[in-house]
Amino acid sequence: MNFFTERLRLEAPIFQAPMAGAQGHALAAEVCEAGGLGAIPAAALSLEALDAELNALRAETKRPFNVNFFAHHPPSPDAEELRAWHAALAPYYKEFSLDPGTIPKGPGRMPFNADAVAVLKKYRPAAVSFHFGLPESALLDQVKSLGCLVLSSATTADEALWLERHGADAIIAQGAEAGGHRGMFLTEDLHSQIGLMALLPQITAAVKLPIVAAGGIADVSGIRAARALGASAVQIGTSYLACPESTISALYRATLASPNARFTALTNLFSGRPARGIMNRLMRELGPMCASAPRFPLATNAIAPLRVAAEAKGDTGFSPLWAGQNAALAKMRPARELTRYFIDSWHSS
Amino acid sequence: MNFFTERLRLEAPIFQAPMAGAQGHALAAEVCEAGGLGAIPAAALSLEALDAELNALRAETKRPFNVNFFAHHPPSPDAEELRAWHAALAPYYKEFSLDPGTIPKGPGRMPFNADAVAVLKKYRPAAVSFHFGLPESALLDQVKSLGCLVLSSATTADEALWLERHGADAIIAQGAEAGGHRGMFLTEDLHSQIGLMALLPQITAAVKLPIVAAGGIADVSGIRAARALGASAVQIGTSYLACPESTISALYRATLASPNARFTALTNLFSGRPARGIMNRLMRELGPMCASAPRFPLATNAIAPLRVAAEAKGDTGFSPLWAGQNAALAKMRPARELTRYFIDSWHSS
Repeated sequence: MNFFTERLRLEAPIFQAPMAGAQGHALAAEVCEAGGLGAIPAAALSLEALDAELNALRAETKRPFNVNFFAHHPPSPDAEELRAWHAALAPYYKEFSLDPGTIPKGPGRMPFNADAVAVLKKYRPAAVSFHFGLPESALLDQVKSLGCLVLSSATTADEALWLERHGADAIIAQGAEAGGHRGMFLTEDLHSQIGLMALLPQITAAVKLPIVAAGGIADVSGIRAARALGASAVQIGTSYLACPESTISALYRATLASPNARFTALTNLFSGRPARGIMNRLMRELGPMCASAPRFPLATNAIAPLRVAAEAKGDTGFSPLWAGQNAALAKMRPARELTRYFIDSWHSS
Repeated sequence: MNFFTERLRLEAPIFQAPMAGAQGHALAAEVCEAGGLGAIPAAALSLEALDAELNALRAETKRPFNVNFFAHHPPSPDAEELRAWHAALAPYYKEFSLDPGTIPKGPGRMPFNADAVAVLKKYRPAAVSFHFGLPESALLDQVKSLGCLVLSSATTADEALWLERHGADAIIAQGAEAGGHRGMFLTEDLHSQIGLMALLPQITAAVKLPIVAAGGIADVSGIRAARALGASAVQIGTSYLACPESTISALYRATLASPNARFTALTNLFSGRPARGIMNRLMRELGPMCASAPRFPLATNAIAPLRVAAEAKGDTGFSPLWAGQNAALAKMRPARELTRYFIDSWHSS
């Protein structure tokens, strides 16, 4: 028996990666209805919006689902840090005739908190996954008392061990191939971020918890490989990003389907934390890892006006184009059909 | 039937990665005798030394083996470029009381050439593999006329296609996890260097040639995963580096077995081309990818005296400590026993 199919009542342990800002209940519901684990990314949502998303999802499916939160520690804003960041972006503000006075204030992404627990209590998701570690133990206990399976991402064997010791029920091993934010939380050293081929054996050797493989998995061969390397489930992101049910812009969608999608890099420009996205103008010109970018999530606010202005001109040069290293394998199929393909792939492997 | 076992008469398609400066016939012979494909790295050898190595190997085994060459285009030395490099290293020369006048001159690594063909003619190896592309077609034809199977490394699908079109008989798909020099030859963009989990499906989709998977493979799970991803053989380096038959220093061996071996990076400091090695003092202080490092292989000469002086004090801070991302899985077993384990792993997967 498979831990995840049993515990989460799935047809096969196929997890749709939660992708903040790129999908909501429409995608998740299709994955759930096909027998996989759909996910609602909560990190970029207000609690009201999260409640609305979960309500909409519940209306569309009675099957188990996952809700994902960021578990970061918000930094206290530092005026000097933001000044340096705004100075780095000033030439672009000028180019697009934007007023730096319009840069939104505020904390950007909110971490998981007690109010979020109250929302979860209404919907009791089968799984709750975290990125950037875990919330403090009192909060985590509340999540567990709702019966939710608790997962979190590890990018090194040390992080997997830490998660096991701090109460995670399962580990998402996030290989360097993965798109979007690196879940790294015990290190800031990008050299520690290794490929799934190396990461999975190291994590399976380090912990006893069941493991979900993430990063570069896009077809039956990837699912077979992840199983061979000890994973009990796979989490798939980029392939779902290309589904018609995702909420990405037409520009983003076109870039994802273009040969440019082969060139991704880890960049801190869009949030302050390293995340894998398709190389674009801002990444090329400031360097994808930029010392002027402030701490997560403080970089986000000053990017937003640039992104809006550029996209209005059909330009993705200032947009976060999150994608993994295997975007080329994305099949552009409806999410339900894609999930059935992954489920069949699991069963045949 | 497997292309490689049939063509190369192996017990299983287990290739020992050629590791210049780190091993010779002693390791290769044990791999061959166990039924794998042992390899002689020729890149750091004079033709006389290569002849001696092949002669010694032939005395120890009648089984098929591989000889590996670099196929780079040597740059014409540029005085300004070398001056900048020597200036970057000057503080270290001072610290070790070394005279920059002692820096050896000369071209460093020699690429494959007609004289090497003459040596190959004496030994007619079953396989000849290249790194950094392929030699020009007239030379390549001479190698093929000796009956050698010609392989070369691809780090992107574009490189695999290029190799297929230029006469390679098989492709070594080198994932970003791999230790030592990146075989990249159509790009200098490190962002194009992706994990094996993403690279193998992209290369298998791009070319018809049989594929050898390389990078992070160190146990039965890695072999299974590589097969699942479409590889017909695996090439294993770091695990063989840890064998008693390798010729690495005691300091290197100890570092490889230490927790530090988890932290590798691509660095151009030791040769001028990016290669994966264990992070050390020079890499930390100059940055692993340093703009002052001259073109390959011109960086090598000025590193040599520093390396010797530091190693004499038990310090690996200036040594190239090539290793892949899975050094933690190296088993420190004799090469013959290790090869038998890999062969059994292949058959059971």
